[in-house]
Amino acid sequence: SMASILPASNRSMRPDRNTYDGKSFVHVKNPYLDTMDEDILYHLDLGTKTHNLPEMFGDVKFVCVGGSPNRMKAFALFMHKELGPVEGGEDIEDICAGTDRYCMFKTGPVLCISHGMGVPSISIMLHELIKLLHHARCCDVTMIRMGTSGGIGIAPGSVVITDTAVDSFFKPQFEQVILDNVVTRSTELDKELAEELFNCSKKIPNFPALIGHTMCTYDFYEGQGRLDGALCSFSRENKLDYLTRAYKAGVRNIEMESTVFAAMCRLCGLKAFPISINAIRPVTWELL
Amino acid sequence: SMASILPASNRSMRPDRNTYDGKSFVHVKNPYLDTMDEDILYHLDLGTKTHNLPEMFGDVKFVCVGGSPNRMKAFALFMHKELGPVEGGEDIEDICAGTDRYCMFKTGPVLCISHGMGVPSISIMLHELIKLLHHARCCDVTMIRMGTSGGIGIAPGSVVITDTAVDSFFKPQFEQVILDNVVTRSTELDKELAEELFNCSKKIPNFPALIGHTMCTYDFYEGQGRLDGALCSFSRENKLDYLTRAYKAGVRNIEMESTVFAAMCRLCGLKAFPISINAIRPVTWELL
Repeated sequence: SMASILPASNRSMRPDRNTYDGKSFVHVKNPYLDTMDEDILYHLDLGTKTHNLPEMFGDVKFVCVGGSPNRMKAFALFMHKELGPVEGGEDIEDICAGTDRYCMFKTGPVLCISHGMGVPSISIMLHELIKLLHHARCCDVTMIRMGTSGGIGIAPGSVVITDTAVDSFFKPQFEQVILDNVVTRSTELDKELAEELFNCSKKIPNFPALIGHTMCTYDFYEGQGRLDGALCSFSRENKLDYLTRAYKAGVRNIEMESTVFAAMCRLCGLKAFPISINAIRPVTWELL
Repeated sequence: SMASILPASNRSMRPDRNTYDGKSFVHVKNPYLDTMDEDILYHLDLGTKTHNLPEMFGDVKFVCVGGSPNRMKAFALFMHKELGPVEGGEDIEDICAGTDRYCMFKTGPVLCISHGMGVPSISIMLHELIKLLHHARCCDVTMIRMGTSGGIGIAPGSVVITDTAVDSFFKPQFEQVILDNVVTRSTELDKELAEELFNCSKKIPNFPALIGHTMCTYDFYEGQGRLDGALCSFSRENKLDYLTRAYKAGVRNIEMESTVFAAMCRLCGLKAFPISINAIRPVTWELL
């Protein structure tokens, strides 16, 4: 089960990470933040004056994020049962019920949040989530993105554990526009963590998992070689050529959030890994 | 009221638009689409085999899109009352209830859909919506994006009617990555339509509206000069300089969807305009 995988990944504390009293805190990289009288996390409907963030979130060790609110609630309920009887009964409430931008559920040390679809949507959530973890003085937090994806040359339903998130040009980088400057950020992930998770997966029967690069695009149709969008200007051959080149570059699946997830977590000192389930859908990417 | 504005904008049929029997249909630009046995609109939970799209949507003349599902439902309920008594009572159902990606409501000729936050999220919805309008054989459709935004040098709460959507570099273009090619698309909008809407706004008392350029960014914090994100590497002076340059380039507000909305609607022959309410929030963009 997921619960048996998670504690394992927490064991491997890297010696090179900044720590304080042996604990690894979240690094907010904004000199203005601590001078602010109040920090409002607009899209989460939370704030430092309206909520006791250390009390609400101080014990968080695992943050699980995914696109769909319903799936994140289902996963939170699953974790809730896995972690054993807790006060509050069998249901869990949406902490962000005051807004319909994102949903958030907490059970014990596990926080589950939806992020919608695409880089800008997850990026707004990550800014506010990372500030939340900072204000709540959380330490030793592991971030996990669990999403669906389109696999390339792999069996439908298999799980891809991402070792590197790459862009549409197969480069391990994320281009962040800051005002009108384009800054390139690394999207390298913790490869030991990926190996560790892969070893866990081998212990579970009938659990098809593999390690590979994950490609992140800004568009689901034209950006991922789909022939069934409202616009399509390339041929079936162009598509196959592109996906074959992606496969040769080590890409095993395509989704829409991994590069900014990897880049932001890396910058803020958070251990992070995306894992994606390769969708079982009419559109799967089977290469010859 | 909104209902009195909408029919007016439908009068100005451009003579240069492709028409058939005097009607303007939606142009899907994908040669593969009509050869497909079935078209599944995944993220809307609709399809050509499972739903009678012409019967469900054939009378649609106005499509209103916005980020938040709750706001789109509230607007649909408002239109429902404005349009007078209709069968089905006072409530309206979410047509996309089978998925939590987007919400969709219909009342008479008005279709309201949520699109989440950011270019990739609205782009997935637009691909599937444009195909829906095509399959349903809709004609003379006007698309309206109604969203919130951060104003630059304008009063909080004022409404910006966009004449041109621009990117972070103040250019009226949208860069679409198609496979690994970057294609630049125009984001020019119908300026006569903007003027017409502005004239309507003047007839409504206490309705502060203006015409201006709208800037679309991929990020809410670093991309829009906010000093309160988890990451901030620029100074207050850098921010003010950037926003001043944006203002001088004609930008009056910033949001996260207008360029792809303008580009896709333009390509598919849909009359489109974004209007945005400049948010009344602690973070407003007041220039000296």
